Amino acid sequence: MAELIGNLLVAQSGGPTSVINASVAGVITEAGHHECIEEIYAGQNGILGILNEELIDIGDESRRNIEGLKYTPAAALGTCRYKINFDKKPEQAAKDMTRLFEVFAAHNIRYFFYAGGNDSQDTAHKIHLEAVKRGYDMRVMGVPKTIDNDLPATDHCPGYGSVIKYNSTTVMEIGLDVGSMATDDGSCCIVEVMGRAAGWIAAGTVLAKQGNPANAPHIILLPEVPFVEEKFLARVKETVAAHKYCIVVCGEGVKNAAGEEIGADKTRLDAFGHAVLAGASEVLKQLVQSKLNLKTRTVLLGYAQRAAAHFASQTDADEAFACGVAAVKAAAKGESGLMPKIVRTSNHPYKWAIAMEPLENIANVEHFIPRDWITPDGFLPNEQFIQYAAPLIEGTVRPPEKNGLPQYVSLNKSPVEKKLGPR
Amino acid sequence: MAELIGNLLVAQSGGPTSVINASVAGVITEAGHHECIEEIYAGQNGILGILNEELIDIGDESRRNIEGLKYTPAAALGTCRYKINFDKKPEQAAKDMTRLFEVFAAHNIRYFFYAGGNDSQDTAHKIHLEAVKRGYDMRVMGVPKTIDNDLPATDHCPGYGSVIKYNSTTVMEIGLDVGSMATDDGSCCIVEVMGRAAGWIAAGTVLAKQGNPANAPHIILLPEVPFVEEKFLARVKETVAAHKYCIVVCGEGVKNAAGEEIGADKTRLDAFGHAVLAGASEVLKQLVQSKLNLKTRTVLLGYAQRAAAHFASQTDADEAFACGVAAVKAAAKGESGLMPKIVRTSNHPYKWAIAMEPLENIANVEHFIPRDWITPDGFLPNEQFIQYAAPLIEGTVRPPEKNGLPQYVSLNKSPVEKKLGPR
Repeated sequence: MAELIGNLLVAQSGGPTSVINASVAGVITEAGHHECIEEIYAGQNGILGILNEELIDIGDESRRNIEGLKYTPAAALGTCRYKINFDKKPEQAAKDMTRLFEVFAAHNIRYFFYAGGNDSQDTAHKIHLEAVKRGYDMRVMGVPKTIDNDLPATDHCPGYGSVIKYNSTTVMEIGLDVGSMATDDGSCCIVEVMGRAAGWIAAGTVLAKQGNPANAPHIILLPEVPFVEEKFLARVKETVAAHKYCIVVCGEGVKNAAGEEIGADKTRLDAFGHAVLAGASEVLKQLVQSKLNLKTRTVLLGYAQRAAAHFASQTDADEAFACGVAAVKAAAKGESGLMPKIVRTSNHPYKWAIAMEPLENIANVEHFIPRDWITPDGFLPNEQFIQYAAPLIEGTVRPPEKNGLPQYVSLNKSPVEKKLGPR
Repeated sequence: MAELIGNLLVAQSGGPTSVINASVAGVITEAGHHECIEEIYAGQNGILGILNEELIDIGDESRRNIEGLKYTPAAALGTCRYKINFDKKPEQAAKDMTRLFEVFAAHNIRYFFYAGGNDSQDTAHKIHLEAVKRGYDMRVMGVPKTIDNDLPATDHCPGYGSVIKYNSTTVMEIGLDVGSMATDDGSCCIVEVMGRAAGWIAAGTVLAKQGNPANAPHIILLPEVPFVEEKFLARVKETVAAHKYCIVVCGEGVKNAAGEEIGADKTRLDAFGHAVLAGASEVLKQLVQSKLNLKTRTVLLGYAQRAAAHFASQTDADEAFACGVAAVKAAAKGESGLMPKIVRTSNHPYKWAIAMEPLENIANVEHFIPRDWITPDGFLPNEQFIQYAAPLIEGTVRPPEKNGLPQYVSLNKSPVEKKLGPR
């Protein structure tokens, strides 16, 4: 295959993770080793910025900044949730696609990398197909990124190891705290974590137990297992009887037997008559307090969990970087329409490698926790899950610190001169 | 003064902090240097365990465990919220006091150390007075401990530096995350932190700004400043117009002009007719969403913030340890009824020393943020506050790690043989 000479464009999409920038660092670093790649550009705020021809000139960034991306949380290039939706908005989607290729052509983009989750892999796949259809010579790669860990084909997703490392640490610390106050009537703490459809994030906090059944978390509620009020309350009661306290972790998307999210109780209305969504932890708290008369507090980690680069997993950061590197290597070799995936080659000791998977096998497929990785009663992941998750949190990223706080980088973001009219 | 020979008893009380055990380590370590101190005991779950004659034999703990207390969160000895309340329950209080002195005498306790916040200092003070009254020769010391930072006399309280270090880091990370998604209509995130009466904890997150007004947090709501809905909403709107996102930190005890907590809206009732307390962040979220039509998420750090020893302040841990040491030194010299306080001797560079303050000046006095440390509009602490708070988060405690998680110690807690009948 003839060498394809041109510019590279990398962009980020969807919710950030602690290590999404490590993948971008991998792309940029590896791109520097290939003479076929001339300029390195980034899209500001994902596909949205590319549509607006808002490109960032990575050539203007210092080496120190690129190094710093390895430990900087949030999307350093900016991100978006914009979707090219041929199903629901075919006219807009067709216009968007045409505009994207105008931008690609205007800036001689021949290498395009899109870091994201399911939706973003779908976007990358569509752009790949469109390039083929138009006969526009460009190599397109998805780069996996999602704390949700719900992409298929890959053993796990960059971003996942860091979120469960931080969440496990936090649940362990909360468990020690609440346990040390367990004097009289018992108490309960509900920790709500992210994960709307799949329960990977909630399940990962089982690592906080460190093999001791007495340790927190005592109950983990997964979206995959229908929530049954009586069974849950009985388990809380048993746990408090045994340990004087109970730490519950719930995924935000915990559902009842009818498949409705328990946090989406629409019976409460605000002043404007809109439904007030309390969130799963709030609903569980009210349940435990009212039915068991047990002092209950909640913790809602929210955005903190996916941005906690001060305690990210080194394994995760290394894998994220390697995915960026592998995507560029494959593209430089002439491949397109692929996504790097992590392959576990050994568990003791943990070893991994990167392989490439066609985007058509990734886009819009969601990967759930196998039922046989969860105890029969559904309240905890079992040993199979623990064996799977434990290696992913090994090692701790140590961002440099100044004045007692981590020092993250922010890019200069020099704009690339526009060559087209407005969108 | 004649040397007082006997046993030492140390106990913890109130809500834990990341460094409460560092103070206990200081007491135990220093006690080993004084021949007048024979056995070292601890009360299990504070005053409550002492009343039940549940004492722990610290002599049975390994050196490694005592060292580990310097970085282990939660109350390693167990804690309680039990108060000897002469005002409201004089009969019970008198009985309790008699029982306490029976336990002290039975175990020849001549040195008593109680680590805690306002209530605990009050308890220590009462025990000191009672010892004098009864002619029971015992040296009693309070040891300061509270994330709330609301004890008087001391420059700041052990536990405070660590909570604001972790919270500032978290707010900084959340700010980067939300800021990187700031593409279209803007967004808002409300981070609720502890602090019912005083706003020290919320105020401390101003350090996340690192001097840049564009950085999070953009608004800090303190319990000391009455909450005015219109002014708050106007400021959120301005902030989103300028930066496309707005990070708000609120203390849990934010109050309206009438002095009522905004999180204590009692109009919503659960199935049993009990008021549902939504919490300040939930109330603010609903306000911002409904009045400004702005996507808003909340983060409720709860117990996580006071237990986050994985990122505690080394300065704080050192000061906490030094308070334990100073308390023992003063007691061995013959003093009683005192509490070590931290004295700031220089700010550039930051230098501190420990001095002793009579417990009568501490007990039941609450210390608030001076109004002139807050900007006139009340939405942010000013430079005076920053100068005060910045040195307290310097240095990071690094607990040992295993399998990717911090390794905290738990004491063996060998019980001291009981000599009395049940309470």
